[in-house]
Amino acid sequence: MANNVVDLNSDLGESFGAYKMGQDDLVMEVISSANIACGYHAGDHNTIRHTIKKATENNVGLGAHPGFQDLSGFGRRNMQVDSEEIYNLVAYQIGAVQAFATINNNKLNHVKPHGALYNMASKNEEMAHAIARAVYDIDPKLILFGLAGGELIRMGKKVGLKVAEEVFADRTYQPDGSLTARTEKNAMIEDADEAVERVIRMVTEGKVEAVDGTDIAITADTICVHGDEPKSLEFVKRLRAGLTEKGILIKRVGI
Amino acid sequence: MANNVVDLNSDLGESFGAYKMGQDDLVMEVISSANIACGYHAGDHNTIRHTIKKATENNVGLGAHPGFQDLSGFGRRNMQVDSEEIYNLVAYQIGAVQAFATINNNKLNHVKPHGALYNMASKNEEMAHAIARAVYDIDPKLILFGLAGGELIRMGKKVGLKVAEEVFADRTYQPDGSLTARTEKNAMIEDADEAVERVIRMVTEGKVEAVDGTDIAITADTICVHGDEPKSLEFVKRLRAGLTEKGILIKRVGI
Amino acid sequence: MANNVVDLNSDLGESFGAYKMGQDDLVMEVISSANIACGYHAGDHNTIRHTIKKATENNVGLGAHPGFQDLSGFGRRNMQVDSEEIYNLVAYQIGAVQAFATINNNKLNHVKPHGALYNMASKNEEMAHAIARAVYDIDPKLILFGLAGGELIRMGKKVGLKVAEEVFADRTYQPDGSLTARTEKNAMIEDADEAVERVIRMVTEGKVEAVDGTDIAITADTICVHGDEPKSLEFVKRLRAGLTEKGILIKRVGI
Amino acid sequence: MANNVVDLNSDLGESFGAYKMGQDDLVMEVISSANIACGYHAGDHNTIRHTIKKATENNVGLGAHPGFQDLSGFGRRNMQVDSEEIYNLVAYQIGAVQAFATINNNKLNHVKPHGALYNMASKNEEMAHAIARAVYDIDPKLILFGLAGGELIRMGKKVGLKVAEEVFADRTYQPDGSLTARTEKNAMIEDADEAVERVIRMVTEGKVEAVDGTDIAITADTICVHGDEPKSLEFVKRLRAGLTEKGILIKRVGI
Repeated sequence: MANNVVDLNSDLGESFGAYKMGQDDLVMEVISSANIACGYHAGDHNTIRHTIKKATENNVGLGAHPGFQDLSGFGRRNMQVDSEEIYNLVAYQIGAVQAFATINNNKLNHVKPHGALYNMASKNEEMAHAIARAVYDIDPKLILFGLAGGELIRMGKKVGLKVAEEVFADRTYQPDGSLTARTEKNAMIEDADEAVERVIRMVTEGKVEAVDGTDIAITADTICVHGDEPKSLEFVKRLRAGLTEKGILIKRVGI
Repeated sequence: MANNVVDLNSDLGESFGAYKMGQDDLVMEVISSANIACGYHAGDHNTIRHTIKKATENNVGLGAHPGFQDLSGFGRRNMQVDSEEIYNLVAYQIGAVQAFATINNNKLNHVKPHGALYNMASKNEEMAHAIARAVYDIDPKLILFGLAGGELIRMGKKVGLKVAEEVFADRTYQPDGSLTARTEKNAMIEDADEAVERVIRMVTEGKVEAVDGTDIAITADTICVHGDEPKSLEFVKRLRAGLTEKGILIKRVGI
Repeated sequence: MANNVVDLNSDLGESFGAYKMGQDDLVMEVISSANIACGYHAGDHNTIRHTIKKATENNVGLGAHPGFQDLSGFGRRNMQVDSEEIYNLVAYQIGAVQAFATINNNKLNHVKPHGALYNMASKNEEMAHAIARAVYDIDPKLILFGLAGGELIRMGKKVGLKVAEEVFADRTYQPDGSLTARTEKNAMIEDADEAVERVIRMVTEGKVEAVDGTDIAITADTICVHGDEPKSLEFVKRLRAGLTEKGILIKRVGI
Repeated sequence: MANNVVDLNSDLGESFGAYKMGQDDLVMEVISSANIACGYHAGDHNTIRHTIKKATENNVGLGAHPGFQDLSGFGRRNMQVDSEEIYNLVAYQIGAVQAFATINNNKLNHVKPHGALYNMASKNEEMAHAIARAVYDIDPKLILFGLAGGELIRMGKKVGLKVAEEVFADRTYQPDGSLTARTEKNAMIEDADEAVERVIRMVTEGKVEAVDGTDIAITADTICVHGDEPKSLEFVKRLRAGLTEKGILIKRVGI
């Protein structure tokens, strides 16, 4: 599907206690949606408080970013967790973050699962369904972010949620629409200009060239960007400029 | 202050993972308010889910029971935490539990701090104020439970919350209204009949005899009971019978 | 391989903080080796201290029982952890428990991985090798316990460790020597007499009947028993009696 | 007491999972003793492994740096922990780190409590005694680091340990030998040259000027330095140069 608007989302609020991570204050200025770590894989109650205050001040859309309860692995390790518990751990984390949105007279706009939870759920109908149900049961107006074309999107729609299909500027795609595994040599788009061009095409034409050279259909409602290093932040600015130049409006999903 | 109604509250949902604690299903039947552990000092997302479902089915009032982030110490150890963080850890925990109330088409009725957080805040104006503000900022209709005559009650009123003054059936009181420290020999009321009599007097007359033999004024809006052992559960039943016999209605605070 | 001695091992020291689990003091009296939880999936520094003191008094062999760092899942959930980290998490946990053995003028006799770590490593050469190397590098005299015929046994031998092949009294075996998955209907031996007979045959003849009716070879150096409930403790006593009646000596591995 | 040798110690190995802290590889080159976080307040099994390997390669003395089990507070918050548990948490952490020393054919040289545990024990005889006993019971050859003139030193000597009195280059002292609280305006020595001069005098004359202008006796066996920022690392180099110029040998305690 072709769009003339798109959302830029980034993972924020990942600091924990004395451990600082990211440069959230700078990233806030260039994105439209923030995925806020909820204290399971990263983040803590102090960080959430600060991050939501800053995101509110920057008019950035608030999202809960629930992950596995695996702080030492940063939520990046697959864990064998049954679906009933998936539902519960997602609900818990959304609730915790929602409290701070309330304190700031704001509310959550979306939910994006993190790391291994996101990756596993993108391919696993049962997990994706558990996540979608938890989001819906807490607030049916929340928008579920998921890998474009994946199970989170499919299950989100099934339970009645509004969804946002997510694309990645720096990753290549397989002919079936899945991301090329990071272990593969051609997984990453290294050239920034090429990455910007690909994103623009995904947004405006609803297409991307897969690794085998064929064009595949893709919906780009929101683009995942990183800003934790000077270089990645610079890329986000180029991406914004490129999108704006093509007349694409950058704004949070759902408004 | 004399009452002809009173609330019975108990700490529930303290199981964690494979670790089971308490006999919540039995306690549910004899209390009017449940203080539900929020995952910091006890409880987990699965236990919260189950406990709120059961409490809802039993028409027991739901309360968040936030504590220090000290699972290995069960939240019973004093910790030096600054007030800003106290605010945040209370907000986080209330939010997490509220999510499960929402899932059950229910809502939180009260907040009661746990263990060391409760004890410290009962004597510390700044901590009590931080807790009261967090509760108010999340939902000004929440009722704050605190030690009768303590700082949580005073600060709760100050920020505009409805409060419930809590008394203990099995503890003795000092002339200044504080609880006798458990390290003292005469801290506990061992005789069940005496305990029931004292509670009835606290509720109906607003008075209790302190350890020095003098009568002190006390307000008993809610009574803390335990039901984790056969003996303590039996006591709650006697207490209910004794209160009912005197025409005192047992119902949750705020309705 | 046929034996006329056998070890009885049990998982102990699983309590955590205020959470009590098992009836270790009773189990101590009927086993020859204790697998002591190390604080990652269960147990804590206080529990380890107490358990090692009691095991030493009961002349029970001390074993570290390292697991995944997953307290809320009790170490029973598969986690995707790379081999280098497997080595490190095993080393850490052995060291922590060894300190308490030293305090009691005792020393660790064996290491048995716990739960998902045990199950995964039994089938995964790389994980098993990482565990075996960690054990060997800390103390080459430690005995590695693993599923009879599995990768822990094979890799333990490969790195130069003495190993103990473990069998299960209450589980059925597949023709290839693996345990029948618990999700299968015929996974468990429910009849206590049958279980005792099977164990005796595994020890004395080195054989067990698989679920397809064929006899398979199995080495039974140590038998995993549970004593956390009255019924399971009773079974251990019957097993001891049955083994003793057949002239099989029950003693810890390696002495 | 006047010395012509002194030890420079620094806290290392504080990274946790994806969270990086410090610039350990640079600090390794300018110190003689490393206090290695043990996984309770900071550090993890992977970090300990790496840190001990690097410290061994740099011929830096290895020390366990046990702290309160308070990762979110970095072990800096006072906690009310009874002495029996203090003993156990210190033993656990020493054992865990010792395992990695063994793997590197090395051994621990010292133990230095961290943060709030250090500060509380410096003034609390019972806590200090519990720590000293744990260290002694695990290995009576370990050297206990503590605040010069404080309870850790006194109790360490009492139980039969060798001790190292620690001084701080950037802190001022009260007439009774205690550190000026950080909340006081004159707590810190801001001028680097002044700090170096004070340390040299502490080492060579065994004296330091207290905040009231009087000279007090102090023993400087080891100096606490930080190297987590370019500026602090630069200071350590100046301190080394200053000490060397005065003919003071920098080497680890106990050799």
